[in-house]
Amino acid sequence: MGKLSFVSDYMEGAHPEILKRLLETNMEKSAGYGFDDFSESARDKIRKACAAPDADVFFLVGGTQTNAVMIDSILRPYQGVIAATTGHISGHEAGAIEHGGHKVLEIEQHDGKIKASDIKHVIMEYFNDENHDHMVMPGMVYLSQPTEFGTLYSLNELKEISEVCRDNHVPLYLDGARLAYALACPQNDVTLKDIASLCDAFYIGGTKCGAMFGEAVVIPRHDFIPHLFTIIKQHGALLAKGRIAGIQFDTLFTDNLYDNVGKVAIEAADRIREALDKKGYKQAFDSPTNQIFIILSKKQIDDLSSDIEMGFWQNIDKEHAIMRIATSWATTKEDVDRLIELL
Amino acid sequence: MGKLSFVSDYMEGAHPEILKRLLETNMEKSAGYGFDDFSESARDKIRKACAAPDADVFFLVGGTQTNAVMIDSILRPYQGVIAATTGHISGHEAGAIEHGGHKVLEIEQHDGKIKASDIKHVIMEYFNDENHDHMVMPGMVYLSQPTEFGTLYSLNELKEISEVCRDNHVPLYLDGARLAYALACPQNDVTLKDIASLCDAFYIGGTKCGAMFGEAVVIPRHDFIPHLFTIIKQHGALLAKGRIAGIQFDTLFTDNLYDNVGKVAIEAADRIREALDKKGYKQAFDSPTNQIFIILSKKQIDDLSSDIEMGFWQNIDKEHAIMRIATSWATTKEDVDRLIELL
Amino acid sequence: MGKLSFVSDYMEGAHPEILKRLLETNMEKSAGYGFDDFSESARDKIRKACAAPDADVFFLVGGTQTNAVMIDSILRPYQGVIAATTGHISGHEAGAIEHGGHKVLEIEQHDGKIKASDIKHVIMEYFNDENHDHMVMPGMVYLSQPTEFGTLYSLNELKEISEVCRDNHVPLYLDGARLAYALACPQNDVTLKDIASLCDAFYIGGTKCGAMFGEAVVIPRHDFIPHLFTIIKQHGALLAKGRIAGIQFDTLFTDNLYDNVGKVAIEAADRIREALDKKGYKQAFDSPTNQIFIILSKKQIDDLSSDIEMGFWQNIDKEHAIMRIATSWATTKEDVDRLIELL
Amino acid sequence: MGKLSFVSDYMEGAHPEILKRLLETNMEKSAGYGFDDFSESARDKIRKACAAPDADVFFLVGGTQTNAVMIDSILRPYQGVIAATTGHISGHEAGAIEHGGHKVLEIEQHDGKIKASDIKHVIMEYFNDENHDHMVMPGMVYLSQPTEFGTLYSLNELKEISEVCRDNHVPLYLDGARLAYALACPQNDVTLKDIASLCDAFYIGGTKCGAMFGEAVVIPRHDFIPHLFTIIKQHGALLAKGRIAGIQFDTLFTDNLYDNVGKVAIEAADRIREALDKKGYKQAFDSPTNQIFIILSKKQIDDLSSDIEMGFWQNIDKEHAIMRIATSWATTKEDVDRLIELL
Repeated sequence: MGKLSFVSDYMEGAHPEILKRLLETNMEKSAGYGFDDFSESARDKIRKACAAPDADVFFLVGGTQTNAVMIDSILRPYQGVIAATTGHISGHEAGAIEHGGHKVLEIEQHDGKIKASDIKHVIMEYFNDENHDHMVMPGMVYLSQPTEFGTLYSLNELKEISEVCRDNHVPLYLDGARLAYALACPQNDVTLKDIASLCDAFYIGGTKCGAMFGEAVVIPRHDFIPHLFTIIKQHGALLAKGRIAGIQFDTLFTDNLYDNVGKVAIEAADRIREALDKKGYKQAFDSPTNQIFIILSKKQIDDLSSDIEMGFWQNIDKEHAIMRIATSWATTKEDVDRLIELL
Repeated sequence: MGKLSFVSDYMEGAHPEILKRLLETNMEKSAGYGFDDFSESARDKIRKACAAPDADVFFLVGGTQTNAVMIDSILRPYQGVIAATTGHISGHEAGAIEHGGHKVLEIEQHDGKIKASDIKHVIMEYFNDENHDHMVMPGMVYLSQPTEFGTLYSLNELKEISEVCRDNHVPLYLDGARLAYALACPQNDVTLKDIASLCDAFYIGGTKCGAMFGEAVVIPRHDFIPHLFTIIKQHGALLAKGRIAGIQFDTLFTDNLYDNVGKVAIEAADRIREALDKKGYKQAFDSPTNQIFIILSKKQIDDLSSDIEMGFWQNIDKEHAIMRIATSWATTKEDVDRLIELL
Repeated sequence: MGKLSFVSDYMEGAHPEILKRLLETNMEKSAGYGFDDFSESARDKIRKACAAPDADVFFLVGGTQTNAVMIDSILRPYQGVIAATTGHISGHEAGAIEHGGHKVLEIEQHDGKIKASDIKHVIMEYFNDENHDHMVMPGMVYLSQPTEFGTLYSLNELKEISEVCRDNHVPLYLDGARLAYALACPQNDVTLKDIASLCDAFYIGGTKCGAMFGEAVVIPRHDFIPHLFTIIKQHGALLAKGRIAGIQFDTLFTDNLYDNVGKVAIEAADRIREALDKKGYKQAFDSPTNQIFIILSKKQIDDLSSDIEMGFWQNIDKEHAIMRIATSWATTKEDVDRLIELL
Repeated sequence: MGKLSFVSDYMEGAHPEILKRLLETNMEKSAGYGFDDFSESARDKIRKACAAPDADVFFLVGGTQTNAVMIDSILRPYQGVIAATTGHISGHEAGAIEHGGHKVLEIEQHDGKIKASDIKHVIMEYFNDENHDHMVMPGMVYLSQPTEFGTLYSLNELKEISEVCRDNHVPLYLDGARLAYALACPQNDVTLKDIASLCDAFYIGGTKCGAMFGEAVVIPRHDFIPHLFTIIKQHGALLAKGRIAGIQFDTLFTDNLYDNVGKVAIEAADRIREALDKKGYKQAFDSPTNQIFIILSKKQIDDLSSDIEMGFWQNIDKEHAIMRIATSWATTKEDVDRLIELL
């Protein structure tokens, strides 16, 4: 019996339903670049799930790519994007946003989240500064749901942020790389429809939620970003065989598969969290989603590592570090049982 | 019976062997970002096929992306890339190279190819111009094999170009989006090993040669491009589940699949070419690969279009246009029979 | 007595009137960044000279900078600029336009000029191409008056180009680095007012027309380019002491100095052209402005070079080259007399 | 008698010696682009003043431009620049660094300065992070002397920072926009020679230190940045009449003018500081240079503003703000007397 692995939520290939559907459709001929019927069907299902009948929907390959394309296409060259200091675009995308010419205007995070009042403050400070024509204009806001720490914005929080954004004509963009794991949380009160009504653009994550790859960009207001197709091409982000992404999202949005993908992971994570609490482990962030961040001593890490692969998150001090356990659609009951036993 | 379709070489999903292998490996857990064993195995097989044991090998998603990343990573900001006016980067990548800050230094094409003497001329002209410090420095050469017109560089032509490049310390890069279809041509005398020994970087195309997606970048000299991993990430071109690309190339380079993919397409194309000749059709370019460019009158196009989907290439005059027929690994004997009958 | 020099039109400091005015105003205190009264006065005079009362006027430092800022601010990221293959931006600005992310869509030149019909053809070809979403969209047109070869657009030619641009919603931009020398030509029928009514943006050159440095950008329609001040700053093109540019243009547009700067140069050039014709020299381009391009044998070049510094333009063949003689506001009657004697 | 103005150090034209020299040389003909004898003389004097006989010296126009060009030319595309959160490039250059594709890696400031230990920490954290290939690599360090708050690095502090940089192969760059005012401070122990021996590149500010415009970039190690001339051109930062910058710096480095420019300003500032202390005003930062930051109540600001123009710096709370008084080479004894009287 091999080592248990809870390193990340993208260790397997894809949800079996997706592979099955790829096989079934494999020899059908289709148009390229997303003009195929599979992609069209997927777009329709996503529009329906978002209650956004006029939405533009595009399928891109990965998260960093999607963030770079969307931020570059929403901002004007002299604008920047407001994000948490811990936002994925702030520290873990190798400067992809700056590569596109834009500053990430980093603001303080609280459990990975940013506050409507802080966003408002940054915008007001900019416009009230006599010298603001020499500064980077806040041109959009970047959130992720769940955040880097697995935490969730409540519907109220999201509404407040959306209101600040709309009052100030600053588009709101949401990174949903792990959105399935937010939607499936009992604690979550933010639906896809809420997101579509409160954000100007967002993406529904596939790569970490059961697909081989793929992120579905949703822009609720049609043509909010003119010529996005060409911008995607220019960024090297246009799939020749767009159908491969389309089929995956069509499958994820058939028979509630995207919901189920989330549920499996959350149920596993909840069982692990309960066990951790019982055994006295301390968690670094109050994450209700599929990522669990445990504070461990170096000795505990050494002991556990002989049987369990976890993800290293960050050092706290010389004696302690935060380790991450991630569940996914592929986590089995047996692995969770064994993990709990070993803890 | 549906309409025959010869529109492009990326109308189906993937070669069945690839899907089979994706299924077999699907639930194995692996590291992300290309650090998995499947990718490592694929890299080894490619190094072997190229007789380039020290080569760096990276798997990217698509052609435009690969060209943009490679050109941006090889050039210094003040340099440009020499390419044919008809090169893919010159006209059909939505300005991806310029988006990265570089000029495409376009030179005359002959059947889609550029000449060593013309390359030398451009380089000499630059260095002999007193004002060259006010100009864009030629920093690399871009070729594709086969070219946009399906034509092939001979080994002698490639050697001459490589010599000009090396004499002038200008790296040579080859776009192999359809490389399988070059390698399988009886007329071709350029092997993968030749390419690896004559070029500084190139890619072996997957998307148009049997994969769902994916291009394998080969850099024969290790670390010729430092920090390429980070550059790939910064360009949004790094796959989280790198294994999906790795498994595909591992399969393509097992049991000569990449060769076979090419052969099926070329045998089909050769049969079609023979039939076209017999029936008196005129071809626009002397392409021996999987793309056939026929000069047709508008009436011929109308007549044929009721039964056959071809790709529109370009208008010649008010009465004539060039249409493209493309074969691929997926072209069946039956479809070719039917096509020949209909012509 | 030193060697005669006709190498360029920017060999001296500045027109004495400008230095006089800089001296007179030197110790007055003023606001920075162009918010001073000198700049405001200059802007008013330029608006009047252009009959463009609502025009936005900005003072930048040099020609390449101005072209880069204006083209980058007018284009959207996925657009390119149409220009002559011999346009200054095409070959002599070290890739500054591409550095800003845009392709220069080069078209054929005729005596340095481009034709309305060719511009229309490029735009139509783009929009008629089924694949244009994979291509660079023509987003503006770049002209220079006079051109690189010293030739002039007639009013009719400019009107035709402007009409094509407006019909297709493609902004027209004119580079007037040497505009004074066009305006002063007897053959010229294009006034500043014409330019302001036919173009969407243009600049009135200072550096080569009597100023120490400086180019005055004129945008006839107010706020055609929102946030241009910040874009200028972002490009490092904003002068802290904006007054230095303002005072220069205020002086150039007082008591017809800009006209006089041109006249001095054109009268000198006309005398030289007459002498060249008489003596049987052949000119390469039919330039009526301050630049004269003579076809000389290598022997003639050697002989003349002992007494006269000319600018090297380009080789024609092994035995002949084109050399440039440039006059300016600073060219003296004595130097012209001596030159004619030596020819 | 007009209002007193201490708003900034760039309110006048230029030091009279500079204008005098521009007048004297005005009608001499010279080569363009910095290849003139004036510029060559200036370069020699600067090399001597810096005890850097092999230094490359370039004259650019303004501070933001210089920072953008230098940072873009030193960094590789995947690298960022470490700077104080209050650094000029962090907040007041309209995103010019990000426009060039680079992230500003902001670190904590202490009186406007950054610490060697913090720089080391950032570099170590990057290299010790397992995921650093997904992050922006620290590629250089940006300092300014004096800082945004008028404070100074001591020689020891600069040595420590330089040591960290060299140990880690991270180039050190110093922004000397107001360097004259640092060099003239009695409290200062960092000479031009120290800067040249401890930094990899820096600039000696002209615009704010007596010139009409101009910054002298010094790169002590010859060809540390290959092709910088072309990079300058590509950034639109190359002066056609390079002599105008060259003459100014030649004058500033003749007969100790640059030192004297600093002394006049510092003596004035010291007198004002002494008076402020006596009268019980509180200063926000311990600046020994030509900028004085006073904490005032809104009522005090209103009262003083009828007679004195100061620069607004920032609000502290609803009742208090920081105002800036700046002296310069142009500040007169009479104005200082009157200011002290009015305080």
